[in-house]
Amino acid sequence: MHAIGIDIGGTKIAGALVSESGEILRALKRPTPAGDPVAIVENVVELVQELRDGVAVIAAGVAAAGFVDATQSIVYYAPNINWRGEPFRDALMQLLPGLDITIDNDANAAGWAEYRFGAGRGATDMTLLTIGTGVGGAVIVDGNLLRGGFGAAGEIGHLRVVPGGLPCGCGQRGCIEQYGSGRSLLRYANEIADAGGIGLNLAAARESAGQLDGTIIAALIEDRDPGALAALRELGSWLGQASASIGAVLDPQLFVFGGGVAAAGELLLEPIREAFLAHLPARGFHPEPTFAVAELVNDAGVVGAADLARLHAERR
Amino acid sequence: MHAIGIDIGGTKIAGALVSESGEILRALKRPTPAGDPVAIVENVVELVQELRDGVAVIAAGVAAAGFVDATQSIVYYAPNINWRGEPFRDALMQLLPGLDITIDNDANAAGWAEYRFGAGRGATDMTLLTIGTGVGGAVIVDGNLLRGGFGAAGEIGHLRVVPGGLPCGCGQRGCIEQYGSGRSLLRYANEIADAGGIGLNLAAARESAGQLDGTIIAALIEDRDPGALAALRELGSWLGQASASIGAVLDPQLFVFGGGVAAAGELLLEPIREAFLAHLPARGFHPEPTFAVAELVNDAGVVGAADLARLHAERR
Repeated sequence: MHAIGIDIGGTKIAGALVSESGEILRALKRPTPAGDPVAIVENVVELVQELRDGVAVIAAGVAAAGFVDATQSIVYYAPNINWRGEPFRDALMQLLPGLDITIDNDANAAGWAEYRFGAGRGATDMTLLTIGTGVGGAVIVDGNLLRGGFGAAGEIGHLRVVPGGLPCGCGQRGCIEQYGSGRSLLRYANEIADAGGIGLNLAAARESAGQLDGTIIAALIEDRDPGALAALRELGSWLGQASASIGAVLDPQLFVFGGGVAAAGELLLEPIREAFLAHLPARGFHPEPTFAVAELVNDAGVVGAADLARLHAERR
Repeated sequence: MHAIGIDIGGTKIAGALVSESGEILRALKRPTPAGDPVAIVENVVELVQELRDGVAVIAAGVAAAGFVDATQSIVYYAPNINWRGEPFRDALMQLLPGLDITIDNDANAAGWAEYRFGAGRGATDMTLLTIGTGVGGAVIVDGNLLRGGFGAAGEIGHLRVVPGGLPCGCGQRGCIEQYGSGRSLLRYANEIADAGGIGLNLAAARESAGQLDGTIIAALIEDRDPGALAALRELGSWLGQASASIGAVLDPQLFVFGGGVAAAGELLLEPIREAFLAHLPARGFHPEPTFAVAELVNDAGVVGAADLARLHAERR
């Protein structure tokens, strides 16, 4: 039976009707009424009603940035919804009687989608890092999504890579999110633009546009601009170093990198692999993981949320 | 039915007949013929024969330091056995026909024992760090031992905590093993002895014994010597900082600390907790884990190896 996946982002709420094989059969979008939890619940309910219209649906899964408890019911903290400790699942189930509903962290939903239908097919142990404004993560162990004791596992963006390093939005310093995110790539690009030399094209692009942004850097990467590639290599190097530490703990067969910058493909994966091997403990003594970019970039959230909800309903 | 656990250490091979409830019914010990793999196999076989004499035994588990593959058969690398890529399980099964045998990493066996019969009872997600000469680790997720894609998960000692930090035996730099191990504690104690002030008793003990060792530091910790306590706090601080990073990835309910220094109990746990909270990302937004010292310190390896072997035999 089909399931519904909803992904509440900072600017839009995406919804999809998803088949058992991960295919999107219907897709809808609305702007996020940011900071208005009541309006968000209403919008989610309406999206679900539209998507289920005329079809049999087994369950609906909702993905959002933030901490979700281990029972997939309570949002401890979700910046996009502006909720703390709210029983989101109960609120939705009251408005959508008869439908099994689960809540999941958005990166976990994306990681599950990659594992089931994307770059992670065939692996049993996979780690996803999503490179967006921040760095999100999801961990698959032995074919299962790792939720952790309190439901907050996979917050890989807050692995510390530099003691006393750059301040992070989580209140700490030196998290990989400050060295391996889209925002970090922008910082590297600006630093290289300031330095002149290979940064001349970055500096010119900045001059003409007022400031650098992801689109400009992506275009320069596509043109193989040496400055933009140097910024990408610095990003990849940090992600590879973090992967070596993650590998020591989790030992995945496969690392998958998602988010906008994953469009750079091999140009991103090469420095990641290089730094991973250069920082791999006891290199040569055990098999090495593979590295891939995500396949379901834009749809991973809704597809994963739908599939996790289906699994939850089937296990009841 | 009972099972047998064997723990191959650097200096001794310990063996035990273990009941289903984790009780040790018989225990034997032999010196390790270090560097002689053939003699080690012979000794393990003889220990198993002696321990199973006259009782029904379902399986035997062998724990050793090093990497073991995900099928619990092959030792990729074991410093105490001096083996690389050896089919250890097959060799033992040929000499012990009819007995199901599994190989496990020693820290994984210890972690499993703590989870089943020790400090981890009742948890579903637990992380063990064993503080010995190095730092070992084991990860329990959702009631299962995390083996990883290649069998080498839980090598927490090689989580990097300082980029470009102290060199580690794994070939890298800055691993937590160089900041949170028994050897690190000794280094801190020597530094404090050199510094004078609260280090006066450490300096005097070093002067009279020729050099500091774990026994001297343990005795000074028991006497609440300010210098020895300062060294212990430095150790605990690093372990707490590493736990914050581990928590971001694994989100365990419980951290357990084993190894000789765990005898310090609350004196060790207090600085760990303090540093963990000081470095916890998004503190205040989700429940906090608890911290405990291991309960089965000396027997954890044999008890865990026996229980993991029993589980393997029952699942066949």
